[in-house]
Amino acid sequence: MEQKYILSVLVRNQYGVLTRVAGLFARRGYNIDSLSVGETEDPAVSRMTVVSTCDAPTRDQMMQQLLKLHDVISVSHLPRDAAVTRELLLLKLLAPEDSRSSILEAAGVFRAKVIDLSPSSITLELTGDSSKIDAFITFMRQYSVAELCRTGLTAMSR
Amino acid sequence: MEQKYILSVLVRNQYGVLTRVAGLFARRGYNIDSLSVGETEDPAVSRMTVVSTCDAPTRDQMMQQLLKLHDVISVSHLPRDAAVTRELLLLKLLAPEDSRSSILEAAGVFRAKVIDLSPSSITLELTGDSSKIDAFITFMRQYSVAELCRTGLTAMSR
Repeated sequence: MEQKYILSVLVRNQYGVLTRVAGLFARRGYNIDSLSVGETEDPAVSRMTVVSTCDAPTRDQMMQQLLKLHDVISVSHLPRDAAVTRELLLLKLLAPEDSRSSILEAAGVFRAKVIDLSPSSITLELTGDSSKIDAFITFMRQYSVAELCRTGLTAMSR
Repeated sequence: MEQKYILSVLVRNQYGVLTRVAGLFARRGYNIDSLSVGETEDPAVSRMTVVSTCDAPTRDQMMQQLLKLHDVISVSHLPRDAAVTRELLLLKLLAPEDSRSSILEAAGVFRAKVIDLSPSSITLELTGDSSKIDAFITFMRQYSVAELCRTGLTAMSR
């Protein structure tokens, strides 16, 4: 059965490691839902968090092939119930004066932070797991979305 | 003069686009400090936010070459003073009982959120621009860092 898997991949910070990883996914036709790459406690090592929709045998195959790549240190699968997962959303809404207070009210309910305000727009920041972010976006679509950025998901074991 | 540039790249969600982008950076020896790929307001389009340390001519060359890639829709440079930039950090600290309250106090000062607590560890979440995240990590290094994940930076124009 296909489902979303979270893989946490530790890589050495070397030119080309991202290409090798992305190339593996592309060549095999594996689908990547989201990807984020960021620093870790060791500046020579980055962590890539990859979310992919596939079945369990495909996931295992993917993990084995990732491990064979140069500069890949470790690959682990984070089961959703044993992981803390978070995403960050920036959402800019067109907010003429008559809709501003209703937007701010909704932002308060979702505990989104207002990070920028202009006479014509409001920019909100929200963190949470993907389902919370999705719910917020769905709700906010009733206003005029000017711009929307999500980081890929990042995750660690509990 | 070398400095950190933020490029915001809109791409069509097609197999292989990530490989082409990462491949361009690797082939040319451009350095990527961070990368995040996430959905946008249009499910067929993803936004890649790339942070790279280089000089201005290299940045312009990079932008032109990105634009030539298949499935790349647009490339823009976000000057830091005209952009809202955010990163997300998850930080797990070993926290035996005697250090717990001092960790929680520091978390409060930085407005970090406690997202997981076990008898031996605390997991914190913090969002902010890169300098805030760096300052927080530097401060928290006095405790035992068990795990650290950063999403790449995401950004939008003000």
